Amino acid sequence: MTRVLILGGGGMIGQKLAQHLLDDGLPDGGDTPQITLHDLGFPANGVAIKDRRIGNISIQAVSLKLAAERFDVIYALASVVSGEAEQNFDKGWQTNLWPLWHLLEALRAQHRASDGAYVPRLIFTSSIAVFGGPYPARITDDFLSSPQTSYGAQKAACELLIQDFARKGFIHGMSLRLPTICVRPGKPNLAASSFFSGIIREPLNGETALLPVPDTVRHWHASPKAAAGFLRHAAGLGPNALGGRTALNLPGLSCTVAEQIEALRDVAGSDVAARIRPEPDAAVMQIVQGWPRDFAPERATRFGFKAESSFREIIETYIAEDLPHDPRQA
Amino acid sequence: MTRVLILGGGGMIGQKLAQHLLDDGLPDGGDTPQITLHDLGFPANGVAIKDRRIGNISIQAVSLKLAAERFDVIYALASVVSGEAEQNFDKGWQTNLWPLWHLLEALRAQHRASDGAYVPRLIFTSSIAVFGGPYPARITDDFLSSPQTSYGAQKAACELLIQDFARKGFIHGMSLRLPTICVRPGKPNLAASSFFSGIIREPLNGETALLPVPDTVRHWHASPKAAAGFLRHAAGLGPNALGGRTALNLPGLSCTVAEQIEALRDVAGSDVAARIRPEPDAAVMQIVQGWPRDFAPERATRFGFKAESSFREIIETYIAEDLPHDPRQA
Repeated sequence: MTRVLILGGGGMIGQKLAQHLLDDGLPDGGDTPQITLHDLGFPANGVAIKDRRIGNISIQAVSLKLAAERFDVIYALASVVSGEAEQNFDKGWQTNLWPLWHLLEALRAQHRASDGAYVPRLIFTSSIAVFGGPYPARITDDFLSSPQTSYGAQKAACELLIQDFARKGFIHGMSLRLPTICVRPGKPNLAASSFFSGIIREPLNGETALLPVPDTVRHWHASPKAAAGFLRHAAGLGPNALGGRTALNLPGLSCTVAEQIEALRDVAGSDVAARIRPEPDAAVMQIVQGWPRDFAPERATRFGFKAESSFREIIETYIAEDLPHDPRQA
Repeated sequence: MTRVLILGGGGMIGQKLAQHLLDDGLPDGGDTPQITLHDLGFPANGVAIKDRRIGNISIQAVSLKLAAERFDVIYALASVVSGEAEQNFDKGWQTNLWPLWHLLEALRAQHRASDGAYVPRLIFTSSIAVFGGPYPARITDDFLSSPQTSYGAQKAACELLIQDFARKGFIHGMSLRLPTICVRPGKPNLAASSFFSGIIREPLNGETALLPVPDTVRHWHASPKAAAGFLRHAAGLGPNALGGRTALNLPGLSCTVAEQIEALRDVAGSDVAARIRPEPDAAVMQIVQGWPRDFAPERATRFGFKAESSFREIIETYIAEDLPHDPRQA
């Protein structure tokens, strides 16, 4: 039975992924995998997985202990989000880079101790924050990563570590550069991108949402369900499918904030869309201006990764998966 | 008076740079800078600089002490070369990445202690080893860095650290991606690129040189003199001249091994060129196949960086600067 460890398994994506794996298994079509979740804490009504470990992956001894269990597949999702990494320089680097190094070193030690027989699959959630402008109209697979946030720099540095450990054969590694995940359920978080979810989620929940940027802002989105799908799909690819380039731009949907709002109006009506209140925030705009707007993710498409094809579909996914009551049936 | 620290000041490039700065000063046209060299050791007949410190920058306390001296310009050249980093995974990462992190942290502590007044200029020697194929015909300034050696991964990771510390205003940082430096004086080193210099240097010194690759191999070169020139020039640019993208592809010369040999024949005669003996080495060829062949370094050219325009010029630079006796006057 395949043993899967999800680091950051208490987070939103970790929970979605765990549920996805419980429901559909791994792409290999074998038995339901045996899943272990690891995080600083877990939501009260989380996924029904018994093996939940509370711990801090930033502590080297924790990495060593987990590595010694020799999981087959390790999802490395644990991370401080972009806004927090930008505000707290120390915490960002200490949380988003060094623990991954210690984990990789701990896995390498297991690889060595097994005389090379143990080669775990490590799937890392990177981000489109590894990119910095100026951009071409669409970002291609060979566009440079020149991050303009600490979060992006940390993700890009992790990608380099993973690629080198994979190249050396210590792990089968892969870095998935997630689009901005939208619509995130629950509360706003410290990510500067939080409002992209907020302007859909809050109105659907009967609340007012603030829009800190002009509605002409274009960005690159995928739903939490698509993100969980990417992560599951990655585990089914051949271990060296990506060759020497182990960081991958994923499919997503490019649309403007105006198009997001239009889709919300289509799905839930004008009254709901009217709950969005423009409140320009120069600091947020400054950050968002540096973000990617559109991609041509040819490699990922060729490898079979799939995302939504309309923002309406993204909203409907949120309603179906995460909204307690469908506002259209009110 | 500007105070300059050269880490790796005992190495070939460090010595060339020091001599260059003694001869011509910094590009600001001020007084001769006060130069401090730091390295594990120094050549017997090295540059006439009194302030030579023997120490190991891999030791964190050494970084802290050097940072406390608050140099105006710091050249970070100290590095384990590519072949060694590939053979010794631990040593490569421990030498080529972590010491730079500790140095940056030590400089940030000084920045903070000075209430932001101290912002040193840090000039880092990166390498075209940050790139990995497949390549376009010419590598442009926005081509991805996807290294295929540990050395390249370490350099690329350092670039990310420097860019983020610079973006935050802790340092004025810049990473110069040096072409393969050719003709290196002295002995062959453990770099896989060592033969590019060997096939010119050894014949000019009356010795046989082995050529491990076909003469159709194309590569990207600049002389040690050009490298020293790049480093000096960088110190004269406006502190934020490079904007958000602080890693720079430098000018160089693209030529095949056959063109190198032809230039050697032109400069020194057929007898000298006949001292090159093909001896194919699959391991070296495997590495070299993954290397860049040609660049379109538009940004660096715009910023005024200059390299040689013919391989003949590169050979003549070696003869003028580093060869005890000009073979043409024999």
